[in-house]
Amino acid sequence: MQLLLYTDYALRVLIYAATHPGEPVAAATIAEAYGISADHVAKAAKALTRQGLLQATRGAAGGVRLAKPPHQIRIGDVVRFFEAGRGTVSCLQAGGPPCKIQPACRLRDAFARAGEAFYSELDAVTLADITASGAGIVRLLRAMPFG
Amino acid sequence: MQLLLYTDYALRVLIYAATHPGEPVAAATIAEAYGISADHVAKAAKALTRQGLLQATRGAAGGVRLAKPPHQIRIGDVVRFFEAGRGTVSCLQAGGPPCKIQPACRLRDAFARAGEAFYSELDAVTLADITASGAGIVRLLRAMPFG
Repeated sequence: MQLLLYTDYALRVLIYAATHPGEPVAAATIAEAYGISADHVAKAAKALTRQGLLQATRGAAGGVRLAKPPHQIRIGDVVRFFEAGRGTVSCLQAGGPPCKIQPACRLRDAFARAGEAFYSELDAVTLADITASGAGIVRLLRAMPFG
Repeated sequence: MQLLLYTDYALRVLIYAATHPGEPVAAATIAEAYGISADHVAKAAKALTRQGLLQATRGAAGGVRLAKPPHQIRIGDVVRFFEAGRGTVSCLQAGGPPCKIQPACRLRDAFARAGEAFYSELDAVTLADITASGAGIVRLLRAMPFG
């Protein structure tokens, strides 16, 4: 049961933005701090901006910053947005290959309930909860790669 | 949040076996009934046999059948087995790429709790529950592809 790397990166962008309030930060700076792909980070930042979670500023000193306070950003909502249409099993996937037995099979209901339980846990967690040790995160991001 | 196609196929093999008790059934017959890859079905059946959920018989009339009654097979256990090591986020994946901020970040705990909630729902469901409409499933499997 794996999330997209894209969802993973979106969460890291939000964590960076929450722990570096103030000036907008470039996607390249975030990517470098984590040691991950700048292209993927830029793509995730763009999607987060479209979703209204980040504010983007253009220009030389441009970049992104949180559009809302961290305690107003629910992790469940972020994951739901990035994982939209990716059901756990093929019968729950938007446009997925049809399964012959679906009308009589109760697997779909069981996985739908399990998915709800999963998101319900994440809905109880905000970006503020995740970054409660903000200073610790900032220190780790400034450290040399895995040093 | 997607399961492996392999996990999906394993569940379909178990559903077939539960709704066709008695004679062993060949992986090719199961694959044909669902209209899915015979190689993938054979691979899933082999793993289920290793896990002690199917019994395999060799020879011309060989095949697989359930090794336990359907009410003793928990869907959560099957999914856990096939998804072993595939954490939702990279910091929960066995041998996944390290993330610099992990020691201070609470994302991992949140996703661990969400994963537990997901499996806890599936632990409450057995193969017998999934196949409660057994006759309906058998009828759909016998129908022409999506006819």
